[in-house]
Amino acid sequence: MIIDFDKIPEVRQVGFKGGKGLLDTRNYIDDKVKIMYSTLHPGASTGIHSHDENCEVVFVVSGELSFHYDGKVEVARAGQVHYCSQGHSHYMENLTDHDAVYFAIVPEHH
Amino acid sequence: MIIDFDKIPEVRQVGFKGGKGLLDTRNYIDDKVKIMYSTLHPGASTGIHSHDENCEVVFVVSGELSFHYDGKVEVARAGQVHYCSQGHSHYMENLTDHDAVYFAIVPEHH
Repeated sequence: MIIDFDKIPEVRQVGFKGGKGLLDTRNYIDDKVKIMYSTLHPGASTGIHSHDENCEVVFVVSGELSFHYDGKVEVARAGQVHYCSQGHSHYMENLTDHDAVYFAIVPEHH
Repeated sequence: MIIDFDKIPEVRQVGFKGGKGLLDTRNYIDDKVKIMYSTLHPGASTGIHSHDENCEVVFVVSGELSFHYDGKVEVARAGQVHYCSQGHSHYMENLTDHDAVYFAIVPEHH
């Protein structure tokens, strides 16, 4: 099937999972995957959360994102991927002064 | 972790999975996911294959790809996604005269 994000209404989240600031997201979700096309605004962050039965793969489309992962900070820029494997926790921040756009997948490993 | 495709050597596949033409791909693989950044050349295709214990999510970065899925042909253009859910089979073709670049994930659902 084709997922055309232009046809999925954008939802604005404030303080996603206990973070701060604005996250705009368009999601396709079934029982096996979440597929997301999102914009994290400047200064915004998500709250820390764990991926116990799934993982998260984030492909940065534009801008850059700072990920807190396993006690370290790592930066992913356009064209790069952050991978939070099963059993780990993470959160992300946009520490820049422009939007960070990313494509993310959360697949269930069961 | 960060996956920087610029640091992963590109591998050229000829006739991937029984298809035809050229596929250049840079892959990160562990026991739970395959994460791929690939270019399907003009006129190239993959062979048909099934996803029995996993799925495949393909995000088109540039160009367009034609997917044969469940007996139909569907086209994904830059910014769009083709999703082959678990238990289905598919293959893709580049019917254009320019490269199709895509980011794909094959997560294991077990």
